[in-house]
Amino acid sequence: MLEDSETLTIRLSADDNVVVARRNIAGDTRVVSEGVTAVDGVPQGHKLATKAIAANEPVRKYNQIIGFATRPIAAGEHVHEHNCAVQEFARDYDFCADVRPVPFVGDGAQRNFAGYRRANGRVGTRNYIGVLTSVNCSATVARFIADAFNRSGMLDDYPNIDGVVSFVHGTGCGMASSGEGFENFQRTLWGYASHPNFAGILMIGLGCEVFQIPRLMETYGLSDTDSFQTMTIQASGGTRKSIEAGVERIKAMLPAANACKREDAPASELTLALQCGGSDGYSGITANPALGAAADLLVRNGGTAILSETPEIYGAEHLLTRRAVNRQVGEKLIERIHWWEDYTRRNGGEMNNNPSPGNKLGGLTTILEKSLGAAAKGGTMPLSGVYLYGEPIDTKGFVFMDSPGYDPCSITGQVASGANVVCFTTGRGSVFGYKPSPSIKLATNSLMYENMSEDMDINCGPIAEGAVSVEEKGAEIFEKILAVASGTPSKSEELGFGDNEFVPWQIGAVM
Amino acid sequence: MLEDSETLTIRLSADDNVVVARRNIAGDTRVVSEGVTAVDGVPQGHKLATKAIAANEPVRKYNQIIGFATRPIAAGEHVHEHNCAVQEFARDYDFCADVRPVPFVGDGAQRNFAGYRRANGRVGTRNYIGVLTSVNCSATVARFIADAFNRSGMLDDYPNIDGVVSFVHGTGCGMASSGEGFENFQRTLWGYASHPNFAGILMIGLGCEVFQIPRLMETYGLSDTDSFQTMTIQASGGTRKSIEAGVERIKAMLPAANACKREDAPASELTLALQCGGSDGYSGITANPALGAAADLLVRNGGTAILSETPEIYGAEHLLTRRAVNRQVGEKLIERIHWWEDYTRRNGGEMNNNPSPGNKLGGLTTILEKSLGAAAKGGTMPLSGVYLYGEPIDTKGFVFMDSPGYDPCSITGQVASGANVVCFTTGRGSVFGYKPSPSIKLATNSLMYENMSEDMDINCGPIAEGAVSVEEKGAEIFEKILAVASGTPSKSEELGFGDNEFVPWQIGAVM
Ligand SMILES: [Ca+2]
Ligand SMILES: [Ca+2]
Ligand SMILES: [Ca+2]
Ligand SMILES: [Ca+2]
Ligand SMILES: [Ca+2]
Repeated sequence: MLEDSETLTIRLSADDNVVVARRNIAGDTRVVSEGVTAVDGVPQGHKLATKAIAANEPVRKYNQIIGFATRPIAAGEHVHEHNCAVQEFARDYDFCADVRPVPFVGDGAQRNFAGYRRANGRVGTRNYIGVLTSVNCSATVARFIADAFNRSGMLDDYPNIDGVVSFVHGTGCGMASSGEGFENFQRTLWGYASHPNFAGILMIGLGCEVFQIPRLMETYGLSDTDSFQTMTIQASGGTRKSIEAGVERIKAMLPAANACKREDAPASELTLALQCGGSDGYSGITANPALGAAADLLVRNGGTAILSETPEIYGAEHLLTRRAVNRQVGEKLIERIHWWEDYTRRNGGEMNNNPSPGNKLGGLTTILEKSLGAAAKGGTMPLSGVYLYGEPIDTKGFVFMDSPGYDPCSITGQVASGANVVCFTTGRGSVFGYKPSPSIKLATNSLMYENMSEDMDINCGPIAEGAVSVEEKGAEIFEKILAVASGTPSKSEELGFGDNEFVPWQIGAVM
Repeated sequence: MLEDSETLTIRLSADDNVVVARRNIAGDTRVVSEGVTAVDGVPQGHKLATKAIAANEPVRKYNQIIGFATRPIAAGEHVHEHNCAVQEFARDYDFCADVRPVPFVGDGAQRNFAGYRRANGRVGTRNYIGVLTSVNCSATVARFIADAFNRSGMLDDYPNIDGVVSFVHGTGCGMASSGEGFENFQRTLWGYASHPNFAGILMIGLGCEVFQIPRLMETYGLSDTDSFQTMTIQASGGTRKSIEAGVERIKAMLPAANACKREDAPASELTLALQCGGSDGYSGITANPALGAAADLLVRNGGTAILSETPEIYGAEHLLTRRAVNRQVGEKLIERIHWWEDYTRRNGGEMNNNPSPGNKLGGLTTILEKSLGAAAKGGTMPLSGVYLYGEPIDTKGFVFMDSPGYDPCSITGQVASGANVVCFTTGRGSVFGYKPSPSIKLATNSLMYENMSEDMDINCGPIAEGAVSVEEKGAEIFEKILAVASGTPSKSEELGFGDNEFVPWQIGAVM
C-alpha cells in the first residue's frame, strides 16, 4: 500500500462525502487526512468518495448536492459519470428545502470596519465625487470636468476626498425609451447617483438624448441639492461653458465632501459583490470556495453578499431555490432563468452550461457540479433575495442579482445594486479594477499569481497545494475585505484602475 | 395683392416643382423669386407648388420624388396631404431608374488637399498613433499608455505626430464568438487598425477574452510589423509591465511616424462620413441639403461620401434603389432594410419612420419626404455601393453604409469603413468630436449656432433666412472639408474631443 502526505486531497466542506484529488492518486493509496484508501486511480481534479454512498443517495461537494449515486459507491472509490448522475432531481425546485438558520456571530464578536456614514443611513467604503453621464454625447465634457480636479492639485486641500471620477459609456440614446434596456440603464444610473461611496454627484447630459435626466429625477422623486446637481450641455451653451459650470458646481461640493470622516461601522453595512473572470480549472476548488467561506463570514456578521452571472449558474438554479428563504424568492430566480432562455433564444443562441468533454476530463461530472464551481463563491447561507440588474438590494444576507457573466457589465450592476466592495476571482489573470467600489483580486493558482503578483491581492493557489484550507483562506479574504473597506488600497486602486470599466448592460436594438 | 421679398421661400433644388415657405405666406402673396402667386395660405415649413402639377405627376423636392399629385395642383397652391400622397410607388424599387452620369469636374479643375500618403496607397488626413483594445479588460492599460505620451511632453520632438490615441469600449467578451455581433466588431477593429489616419497601431488585449487578437490577425493575414504591434496583458505579466512594454513599442514607432509629411493629394482621396444628430425642423431644409450639395461636389471631384443611419432613411429606400448604379447594389440595400425589420422585431420593436402628427403640422407630407430630409445630406449622385457596418469601402462616389442612427455608433462604423473626414449636421446642438477622423459640425439654425458657436464650425441657418442658397452653403462646406482635411483643426479638435466616442455597434446577447 502506498502512503500519502496530508495534502493529497482538497476538502471543500466538512459535510461533503467527496474530496478533490490535488494530483493523480494511484489505486490502493492511503489518504490519511480522510481516513480512506483509494480503491481505483483518481486523476487530478477528480473526486474520491470519503465514505460509502448508497445508491440514489446525494453526492455532496461544496456542502451542496452535485448528483446522486447511480449504484452503491464504496469509501475510497473514484466518483464520476460511471457512478454519479443528476437524474430527475434537476427538474425539482423544492423551494426552501435546504434553508438552515444563519449562524450569526455572537454579541460582541461582530467585526467592524471604518466607513463613511451617509445622511440616508448607508455606509460608504470610499469618498468620491461622481460625474455621471446620461449619454455618450456628454462623455468628453464629463472627462474634462473630472480631469480639472484630478490633474490640477485642486484636491490637495481636501485630503478626505478620494477623487472626482467620471463614468462614461456608449449608450443613453439610439435606444428605446421604455422596456428592459431602458429600465436596466435607469436603475444603473440611479444606483450610482445614490451610492454611499459618493459624497456628491454631478449628472451631465447633452439635452436631446433619449435618456432624459428630468425624467430620471421625476421617476425617483429627486431634485437638485448641494450634493446632487444636474445639467445639460445644450442648456449651458456648449462644451467650454459646460466644463466651467460643472467645475464650479463640484468646487462647491468639496468642503462638505471633505468633512466626511471614517467612523466605526459594523460589518453588516458591507455589501460584497462576488465575481469571477478568466476562470480556470482551479477556480472551483480554490478561489471560489475560499471566497464563499469569506461570504459566509460576512453574512454571519449580518452583512450582504451578491452572487450574479446568471449564465454561469444555469442548470444549478434548483440548488439556489432549495436555499431560498421563501417560495417568492425562489420563484423570482426561476423567472429570471426563463427570461435568459428567451433572451438568448431571440438573439439566436441558447443557454447551455453543461460540462464539455474537456470539463469531464478535468473531473467535472454534472452540470450541477460545474455551475456550483461558479456559485461556490456565494457560500452556503440561505438565499434571502433575488434582484434585477442594478435593482436596490433591500435585504441583508446572501442574495442573487441577475446579470451576464461579463465582468465589467456584471460588476456595474452589482455596484448599482449597492455593492461597496468587490471580490474578484481569476485564474487566467484579470487586471480588473473598479470605482467607486474597491475591487480585491483573488488568484486561483500560484503560477498566475507569481506572474501577475502586482495585480493580485491574495493567492488562493496554496489551497491546491495543500498548504492552507478553504476555511483558512476564507478567513484571510474576510480580513482583507475589512481592511480594504476601511481604506487600505487594493492592488487595482494602487495601479489607478476604475475610470474605464463602467459598462451598463445594454439590451435591445441600437437604433 | 401682397408683395414679397426675395426671401419668402427656400428652393432645395433647381429641378424641384415645390419650394418651402420660410415663414407663413398669406393667400394672394406674390412670390417674386419663383414667379408665382400663392393661391391659398402656406404655413412656415410647408410646400408651395412653383408650377402646375398634373394628377399622378411626381412632386419633386431635393430633386427627388416625395409623392404624387392626387389631383391637379395649380402653380402657387399649398401642397400637402390634401393633394399629395405616396400611393403605389412606395412598393416599386425600380432599380437604377434615376441614375444619371456623375458630372465630374473637368481636367485641371479638380481640387486637392494636403494629406499623408500611406504605404498601401491610401491617404490620411491626420497622423495619429492608435492604441486599440480587443476588450474592455485592457481599456485602462491602453489609456495609461496613451497618457504616458500625451501628458509627458514625450511627443515634443515629434511635431508631425498628432497624438497617441486610445480607443476603449465596453465589449470584446461576454459575446458570441461568431455571428453578426462578432463580425461587426471584427470589421470595426480591423477598419481602425488599417485606417490611413494612423501612422502606427498598438493593439492590446487581456489574453482570455472572446475576441482573440491572433484570430483577427489570421483572418486578415496580418503579422506584427514596425508600425503594427500586438500584445496581451496576461502574456506581459500584468498591468505595470504591459504599460512599460506598450510605451516602449510605441516609442519605437515615433521616428517613422514623425517622418510622415503632408503632400498634395486629389480630393478623390477623401472619404466623407455624412451624419446628423439632434435633428430639428430645419435639418431637412438647411444643413442637410447644404451638406448634400457639398457631398455632390466631392463626388464630382472623384471622392466618396458615405450616407448611413438606416432607420432614418427607412421608407425612402426605393429612392436610393432608383439611384443604384446596378441592380446588385440596389438589392443589397433592400436586403439591409429587411434585416432591420427583423432586428427591430426580434428586439420587441418595429421600424417606423412615418411622419408624426407634429411632423405633418410642420409641413412634412409623406414618409418619403421625411426620410429624404435625412437622406438629403447624401446629395443627388448615383448610389455606387452599399456596405455593411464597418465594411471597407472599395468604390468611389456616393455610397451607403448600414448603421443605427445613434451618432457615435454610426460614425464608428463609417470611420472603420474608411471615412477620413466627418460632417455632422445638428439642430439641437451636438458637441460631438471624433478621432482619428476630424469632425466638422454644421448648425441647422442661427439661434442654436449663436448659443453654441464655440462648438459649431459652420452655420447653415442663413439658408432659412434667405441670406444664402443651398448651393452657396454647400460650396462653403466643401471648402471647409478641404481645409480641415489638410490640417486646419475643426472646433471639436480644438476642444479636445475624440477619446471617448468609440462605440462599436453591439448586436446580440451579452453573456
Ligand atoms: Ca466567470
Ligand atoms: Ca434545471
Ligand atoms: Ca464574470
Ligand atoms: Ca439623425
Ligand atoms: Ca446620427
